[in-house]
This record gives sequence, C-alpha cells and structure tokens, in this order.
Amino acid sequence: MRGKFISFEGIDGSGKSTQLRLLAGELRFKGCNVLTTIEPGGTPLGRRLREAFLETEETVAPLAELLLFAADRAQHVEFLVKPALAEGKIVVTDRYADATVAYQGGGRGFSEKIVTQVVKLAANGLTPDLTVFFDLPIEKAILRAGSRRADETVRNRMDGETLEFYERVRAAYLQIARKEPKRFRIVDADGRIEEIHGRVMEVVTEFLSKN
Amino acid sequence: MRGKFISFEGIDGSGKSTQLRLLAGELRFKGCNVLTTIEPGGTPLGRRLREAFLETEETVAPLAELLLFAADRAQHVEFLVKPALAEGKIVVTDRYADATVAYQGGGRGFSEKIVTQVVKLAANGLTPDLTVFFDLPIEKAILRAGSRRADETVRNRMDGETLEFYERVRAAYLQIARKEPKRFRIVDADGRIEEIHGRVMEVVTEFLSKN
Repeated sequence: MRGKFISFEGIDGSGKSTQLRLLAGELRFKGCNVLTTIEPGGTPLGRRLREAFLETEETVAPLAELLLFAADRAQHVEFLVKPALAEGKIVVTDRYADATVAYQGGGRGFSEKIVTQVVKLAANGLTPDLTVFFDLPIEKAILRAGSRRADETVRNRMDGETLEFYERVRAAYLQIARKEPKRFRIVDADGRIEEIHGRVMEVVTEFLSKN
Repeated sequence: MRGKFISFEGIDGSGKSTQLRLLAGELRFKGCNVLTTIEPGGTPLGRRLREAFLETEETVAPLAELLLFAADRAQHVEFLVKPALAEGKIVVTDRYADATVAYQGGGRGFSEKIVTQVVKLAANGLTPDLTVFFDLPIEKAILRAGSRRADETVRNRMDGETLEFYERVRAAYLQIARKEPKRFRIVDADGRIEEIHGRVMEVVTEFLSKN
C-alpha cells in the first residue's frame, strides 16, 4: 500500500521543525514506519544547493531562488519522497510546494501564473495528503526565530526580511487554507510545545484513521 | 547604446571555448569592450551550483538538472549579462538557452513544452543577437573532449553519455538553425584552430557591421 505524504508548513519560528520531531517520535512509538525530511536540503544534491544558496557572497535573484528551490524539490520528490511512499512509509516533510506559493508568490510577489507553473513542474504530480500549517502572529514567530538564531553560526538569508514580507507569506498560507480546507489544516502554534504537540496529534490521528 | 549579446554553442569537444578566447582577444585588440562568460557557472552563485552538480555523490534527476541550469541562467542574466549589455559591452557567452533546448530537450528527451516553458522563464526575455554553433561530427568531438579530459581532475558528468545522446543533441541544434537562420549561424568546426577562428571572425565581423 502506498504510504502517506504529510507536509509541515509555517514561517520561521513557528515551531514546525520541533513539532515534526515530536510527531515522528510518537508515530514511530506506535509502530509506524516514518521518514522525516526537509526542503530545501532533503537529498545530498539538495544539501549542496542549500549550502550554495546560503553561503554565496552575492545577492540571489528572486527568479534564481524560485528555480533553485524547484530543482531541490525535483530531486527530493524523485529520489526520496516517491520511493519512500512506494515502500508504504509515512513521509513527513518540513516544507514543500505550499512554501513556494507562500514565500515566492506571496512574499516576493511573483505572479501566480509563474509560481503555479514552476510548482507544478517540480512537484511532478505529487501533492501532500495532509498539510499542517503552524499559524502564529508574525511578531511572536520572529521573536522565537531571533532567539534561536543568536546561537547559529550559519547566516540565515531570511534575517533581512521585513515584517510586511512575513505578513504576505502568512496571508498566502491562509489563502491556501481557504482554497483547500480538506488537505490544508491550520494548527494554532501559540502555546507550550506539549500543547501544540497535542493539537498536531489530534489532526494527524484523525487523518490517519480516515485514510 | 545597448551592447551585443553573442552565444557560442556546440557539444563538448567542438572547440567553442578555445574559439571564444580567440574571438574575445581579437575584438579587444580592435578596441571593443568585451565580456566573456559561461553557463553554467558565470556568477559566484552559478559556480557554486555548478560545483554542487558536478560533485554530488548521487545521480541528478533530469528534471532537477533542467531546473538547476535554469536557476544558474536566471542569476547570470540578471546580475551579469543584462548589466554588461546596458553598459554597451559585447557579451560572449560559452553556452546559453539553446544548450537547454539541445541537451535537455534533444538529449534527455524532455517535452518541447516543458523545455520551452523553463527556457523562457529563466532567460527572462533575453535572446542572443547572434549565436555561433560549432558543428563537428560527433566522433571527432568525442575524441577531442576525451583527450582533454584525461588531464582534468574534476569528473565530468557528461562522460557517461552515449553516442546516440550526442547525436540527438546535435540534431536539436541543427533544428534551431533551420528555425532561426538569421540569429543561429553554423560554423564548420573541423580543421585547424586558426582556420576555424577565421570562419568565426567572418561571421562575427559581418554581424557587427550590420548591427
């Protein structure tokens, strides 16, 4: 039986990566065969592309950024996600195609036509069965991400974005939620880690019981 | 006045890179302001992407390859080629969009629709004013490329391609020549370096005198 494909989405600091680890741990404890992964950087090529993007000394053109993330996704889908699904695994990815719609479309302002074209091409027909969006007021997310970044050595290209940029990203995510309420579920990401984990488990358990 | 954009195309071993250096030298001697560049790898980001592509330990999915070269091109056009043209320079690039049509379309067999879509997106409206295609029987090109590679330490991903692959690439280039005879000029790349240089100078001088 084909596995299940779950994506976690949210802006930096929304807590999705922590929640992904907690969910994977609990599902494995229950006996599920889980693969956790990330975009960009889920494959050896993807990690090199992610490094190239983060470490280059020049500004990255928005169109180059869009196409680079698409290249990462094409490799990820072909060599990691699709094979794992074929083996019946539950694949949980930290970001997928909705991130392109939200960041490059909403945030950078690329036309919907171009973003849709590139997203469709790179995903090669693979849509998540369930997407969990970690929603949090932008100010709180930035505070969380900021305190974490103080410890990081790798410079994060997102540091320079404005509050308005993140507001547009969040608005784009919420628009997807309105368009695809069945696949795209909003989880309130404000609160203690354990509380939010409880909300995620509720959404995922309900999904797995019906699919 | 806007500069001129010239691309050199041809399969590995066709001698185009050597000819590019010779042409640039002669144009500079005549007082032209020339910028020579290359795809992939014409920008700092592009060089990192090229390295990632060449050095990754895993197979690169054809779709990832297509999108990766497109990302390289988007950066190249935006930050190197367009600014140089705006300064009135003659930009001569070792490969450009036709290479994607020939290698990914002809060679890898991607649908014309997808290749055209990606090429159009990455080039962002920038077409060469003149393209010089170095045509050579595949067997001779492979011999030339092979003798050169023996000295190279960086592994070339193209090493593994078959004769049929290169025949399809060449056929795709020749098809562009039939479609766009004004822009796309075929130069016989068989012969001594000086002879071929003479043929290139003839084509380029004629072009520059009329444009």
